Amino acid sequence: MDSLIREKILTSLAPMDIEVPLSSMDDSAVIEGIAFSTDSYTVRPIFFHGGDIGKLAVSGTINDVSMMGARPIALSSGVVLEEGFEVSDLERIFRSMGETASAAGVGIVTGDLKVVEKGGLDKILINTSGIGFEDPELENNHVKANGNGKRSKWLRDSNVADGDVIIISGYVGDHGVAVMSSREGYGFESSVSSDVAPLNGMMHRALASGGLVAAKDPTRGGVANALNEWNEKSGIGIVVEEDQIPVREGVRSACELLGIDPLQIGNEGKAIIAVVPEYAEDVLRALRSTEEGKNASIVGVARKDIKYVVLKTEVGGERILERPVGDPVPRIC
Amino acid sequence: MDSLIREKILTSLAPMDIEVPLSSMDDSAVIEGIAFSTDSYTVRPIFFHGGDIGKLAVSGTINDVSMMGARPIALSSGVVLEEGFEVSDLERIFRSMGETASAAGVGIVTGDLKVVEKGGLDKILINTSGIGFEDPELENNHVKANGNGKRSKWLRDSNVADGDVIIISGYVGDHGVAVMSSREGYGFESSVSSDVAPLNGMMHRALASGGLVAAKDPTRGGVANALNEWNEKSGIGIVVEEDQIPVREGVRSACELLGIDPLQIGNEGKAIIAVVPEYAEDVLRALRSTEEGKNASIVGVARKDIKYVVLKTEVGGERILERPVGDPVPRIC
Repeated sequence: MDSLIREKILTSLAPMDIEVPLSSMDDSAVIEGIAFSTDSYTVRPIFFHGGDIGKLAVSGTINDVSMMGARPIALSSGVVLEEGFEVSDLERIFRSMGETASAAGVGIVTGDLKVVEKGGLDKILINTSGIGFEDPELENNHVKANGNGKRSKWLRDSNVADGDVIIISGYVGDHGVAVMSSREGYGFESSVSSDVAPLNGMMHRALASGGLVAAKDPTRGGVANALNEWNEKSGIGIVVEEDQIPVREGVRSACELLGIDPLQIGNEGKAIIAVVPEYAEDVLRALRSTEEGKNASIVGVARKDIKYVVLKTEVGGERILERPVGDPVPRIC
Repeated sequence: MDSLIREKILTSLAPMDIEVPLSSMDDSAVIEGIAFSTDSYTVRPIFFHGGDIGKLAVSGTINDVSMMGARPIALSSGVVLEEGFEVSDLERIFRSMGETASAAGVGIVTGDLKVVEKGGLDKILINTSGIGFEDPELENNHVKANGNGKRSKWLRDSNVADGDVIIISGYVGDHGVAVMSSREGYGFESSVSSDVAPLNGMMHRALASGGLVAAKDPTRGGVANALNEWNEKSGIGIVVEEDQIPVREGVRSACELLGIDPLQIGNEGKAIIAVVPEYAEDVLRALRSTEEGKNASIVGVARKDIKYVVLKTEVGGERILERPVGDPVPRIC
C-alpha cells in the first residue's frame, strides 16, 4: 500500500508547495494556515463495543487535524449507503456523529448522501474531511520545542530529534480488540471497549504545556507503524521500553490468543507524542489531567546513535519493532 | 432522499450558527470565511465518453465550492478500492485527477486510500472535499447585486428575487447522455461527450463582471432540480423559455429514445446563474468569453407573481417543471 501510494499516486497528483504537503504524508496537510485532512471509514461491524462507524468517522478526522497542532473547527460528512440499509441504523449512526462532534465542539457543516444499488457496497461507508486553524498555543509550544531552530512549527513526522522523549497517552490496542471481539467467527469474547474518542481537547492541553515536536494517532498498524513513520521521516532511531507501554490485561490475552502484537493493532483514541526532554514531565502531567490521557506514560526516547525502532522487552532483551506487514486486522477503521 | 436528509440527518447533526450552515443545503458551507464542500462519486462506468470518475470527482467538488462565490484552493481525495482493482486503471484515474486539478490551479493536498475485500464494494468510490476562500471579486459583485440590501454576499440558493435573470452557461444534458451511452445494455450509442470540467475560472470571470446573486451546478436531477431548489429556498417563481435552453441534437434524440427530459438529467460542467437584470448582458458576455461558457444563454426570469417553476414550451404552451421523482439516471455522478 505504501509503495503504491508513493509510486503511483504521489507522482500523478500535481505536487504543491505548501506548509505541509501531501508528499510528506503527515496526518493532515497545511495550506494557507488551514490544516486539512480526510479519511474513509469502513469498519466492520458498524456497531462495536464502545462505539460505531459514526463516532469513529468523527473522532478519527478530528484526531488527524489535532495531531498537527491545529484546532479542528469543522467536518464534512460523505455517506454512501447500500440500497436497503436500515433507516433506524442510519439514524443511530447520524445521532452518534452529531453527539461526538458536539461534545468535541466541532461542527459537521457540509455533507453528501448517496445510495448505490444492492451489492454495489457492503452496507455503508463514511468519509469525513476536517479543517482546522493553528491552535492558539502552537506558537508558544514551538518556542519551547524548537531548541535547534530548525523544526517545523507544525507537529510533523519529520520533526523528531535526538533526545526527544516519547509519550503514549494511554492503553494501546483497545480499539482493535474491541472491534475483533464484536465480530462473529473470531471465537472469542472480550469486555474490552474501543477507545474511540476525539482528542482535540487533550492535545490543546498538551500544547499549552509546551515542548511538543510531533504527535500522531496510532491507527492502522498501531504504535509500531507510527513509530516507524517517525523513524523514517525524521531519520532518527527510537528506543521504547515494553514494560512502560500500557496494555490492558484483556487486550494482552486477546492478542496472545490471536497471535497479534498489541503494538501493531489500531487505536482510535490515543496519541503518541514526542517532546523535548526539558518539558516531558510537564506534558505528561498535562495529559494525565485529562480524561483521555489519564493513563499517559513515558515509553521511550529518540536516539541518533541507533538506526531503527528498538523495543526493550520485559524479559530484558531487545528486538527491532517493525511495521506490520499487511494488515493484521482488516477493516478496523 | 430529500425528506430523509431533512428529517433524519439534519436533526441529528448538531446545528452550528455559521455564515452558510448545513441546514441551508447550499452547494458548500461557509465557516469563518472558508467555503467547504464534500461529495462522493460512484459513477458507472468509471471511464465514459469525455471523462472518468477521477476527472468527475475533482471537477464536481471544485464546482460546488465555486458556485458559492469562492475561489477553491485545495481538495482532499478519499479513495476506496475493491481488492483486485486494476492498478493500471487506478494510475489512469489518479493521473486524470492530477491533470484536472492542475489545469484548474487547485491542489490535491491530502488523501486517504483504503482497500476493502472483494465484494465489499463495486470497484471504486472516490470522495473529494474542497476548501476555498472568498473570490477576490465577490465583494464588488455584491455591491452590484445587492439592490435591496438584504441578500447574502455568498451566492446562496435563497438569494433569488423578483426580476433576476436566469442564465445557463451552455448545453444541458451532455454528461448524463454520455454516461448512459457508455453503459452496456442501454441499447444506444451516441457521440455526445460528457461536459465534465472545473468551472472556477469561468465563475471568477462572471463575478468580475458583477451582479450575480446565485449560482448552482445542475448535477443530480439536472436543471429542473436546481431551479426548483431556488424556487423553494428563495420563495420565488421562475419562468424559463424552453427554446432558449441549449440542448444538443444528440442529447435531444437520446432523451426521446429513453423517455427522459434533458432538463432532468445531470450536468458536470454547467452552471445556472441568477443575475440582477441590470448586469445580465454583462454576465452573459463574460461567460461567453470563456471556453466553458461560450454557449451561455439567457433562459428565464424570476417572478414573484407566480408560485412554481414554469416552462414555456417551444410549441407555445406552459407546464410546471417539477423535480424529477426518484433518479431518472442512477449512478451518473
